[in-house]
Amino acid sequence: MIKTPDFVHEVNFHVRYAETDAMGIVHHSSYVIWFEEGRSSYMRAIGFPYAKVEESGYYFTVTEVWVRYLIPAKYDEEICLRTRLGALKSRGLHFDYEVHRAADNELLVSGYTNHVCIDRAGVVRRIPEEIMAHLAAGASL
Amino acid sequence: MIKTPDFVHEVNFHVRYAETDAMGIVHHSSYVIWFEEGRSSYMRAIGFPYAKVEESGYYFTVTEVWVRYLIPAKYDEEICLRTRLGALKSRGLHFDYEVHRAADNELLVSGYTNHVCIDRAGVVRRIPEEIMAHLAAGASL
Amino acid sequence: MIKTPDFVHEVNFHVRYAETDAMGIVHHSSYVIWFEEGRSSYMRAIGFPYAKVEESGYYFTVTEVWVRYLIPAKYDEEICLRTRLGALKSRGLHFDYEVHRAADNELLVSGYTNHVCIDRAGVVRRIPEEIMAHLAAGASL
Amino acid sequence: MIKTPDFVHEVNFHVRYAETDAMGIVHHSSYVIWFEEGRSSYMRAIGFPYAKVEESGYYFTVTEVWVRYLIPAKYDEEICLRTRLGALKSRGLHFDYEVHRAADNELLVSGYTNHVCIDRAGVVRRIPEEIMAHLAAGASL
Repeated sequence: MIKTPDFVHEVNFHVRYAETDAMGIVHHSSYVIWFEEGRSSYMRAIGFPYAKVEESGYYFTVTEVWVRYLIPAKYDEEICLRTRLGALKSRGLHFDYEVHRAADNELLVSGYTNHVCIDRAGVVRRIPEEIMAHLAAGASL
Repeated sequence: MIKTPDFVHEVNFHVRYAETDAMGIVHHSSYVIWFEEGRSSYMRAIGFPYAKVEESGYYFTVTEVWVRYLIPAKYDEEICLRTRLGALKSRGLHFDYEVHRAADNELLVSGYTNHVCIDRAGVVRRIPEEIMAHLAAGASL
Repeated sequence: MIKTPDFVHEVNFHVRYAETDAMGIVHHSSYVIWFEEGRSSYMRAIGFPYAKVEESGYYFTVTEVWVRYLIPAKYDEEICLRTRLGALKSRGLHFDYEVHRAADNELLVSGYTNHVCIDRAGVVRRIPEEIMAHLAAGASL
Repeated sequence: MIKTPDFVHEVNFHVRYAETDAMGIVHHSSYVIWFEEGRSSYMRAIGFPYAKVEESGYYFTVTEVWVRYLIPAKYDEEICLRTRLGALKSRGLHFDYEVHRAADNELLVSGYTNHVCIDRAGVVRRIPEEIMAHLAAGASL
């Protein structure tokens, strides 16, 4: 296990109408998509965007998702999504997420995702050194 | 312009909860996805599934979508989607769609999509002969 | 804890193109939507559609989702989704899911969801007797 | 027909991975959701968020959508979405949209949506005066 940075990345956005459902609240699958946007934003913040990971021939494929729902988000609310690299291994990563309502910082939803690094053929591979350096250093790079 | 078959393809399915929004009805973007499922089902019905089109190196990329909303669909309703190949050209297709509520055959939504045939490099190409034969013959093949 | 029926409900459908992503496989959030469709289909099968649950003023709100990804599904593949009521309590439910590729019965993805029964005001409530009877009896009703 | 403001509202965001499909580009239905986000952002900008429209008992229900696809957007690209109130009537609105790639200002997709103002019972209604004032004034309010 490689030491992970303490860095907690924040990104804010408004809830889209299409993300709601007939209960009048955000559909539970939308948070899974927000987690992914949290990862994308995290990778941009540490200077190695995930688009560049893919261009170099690698994917962080999702192997597990867990979500716990506490309070529903609603249309147009501003969301503050916090993403943290919870664990880093030679061939895999673990991200933790917290979805907060920006107005009062209330925790709405939390969860995690697990990933393994694969190449274009789908074979599990070590995370390339340059990417690993960015992940291990976090925002301080 | 190549003569198109009179064949109207029908596929039935239930409205998913995730397809609804906070108005308590189906979100307007969901119909665009249903149209696509109508095309997929149409291609399976004429014996040349779209997955096979892509395997042979071609795509029917979407160039235009139009949708008119009359009556909203609701969660769990059974939908009857009618898809018709409205126009067929050497390099393109036009599909027409009607979304009906199965219970009373009420027309809820109608629309069309336009497509051009491209190869993997994104270059516009003639629709390959074998695919064209299936499209022109419709379900009678 | 109320005894749950052994009943495993199956529903088959084709993967939609919109459910895929740039990796060329089904996006990991799509399975969460399929789980929901599994529940909807399960409730129809036991004779108390979820639409009727909502009409009677109750919701089975999602409190937890877990998904494990083994093998990716692809566009147009036929999916066989198996849904089982894993646990039933006076105020809550737990569903288990298995996503299989219909062609060879390969297990692609598994997972679960937890739910609590709430009323329109969002207050946790006992599952009404009539609904409970259907849930406890399963398909045999 | 009421005079519409010249105001063109811009909002920028990154393409989400979930918005792509197996062609490696943004799925054509995603732009319809972006248009809606453009409207949401527009309404926030003119000082009458759409959430407030709904709170006051009105909806701008979608009656028509048209989209023309020129160049595909890709994962992680920064998008600049331009939204303009193209027409304003006592009971309806028309919005025009342009999706640009922020990096080089290339026009990727354009389209429009039509809306009618309805109340909670689904009855077509005049747009309330206060909302109309904001719409007619645009960003200058």
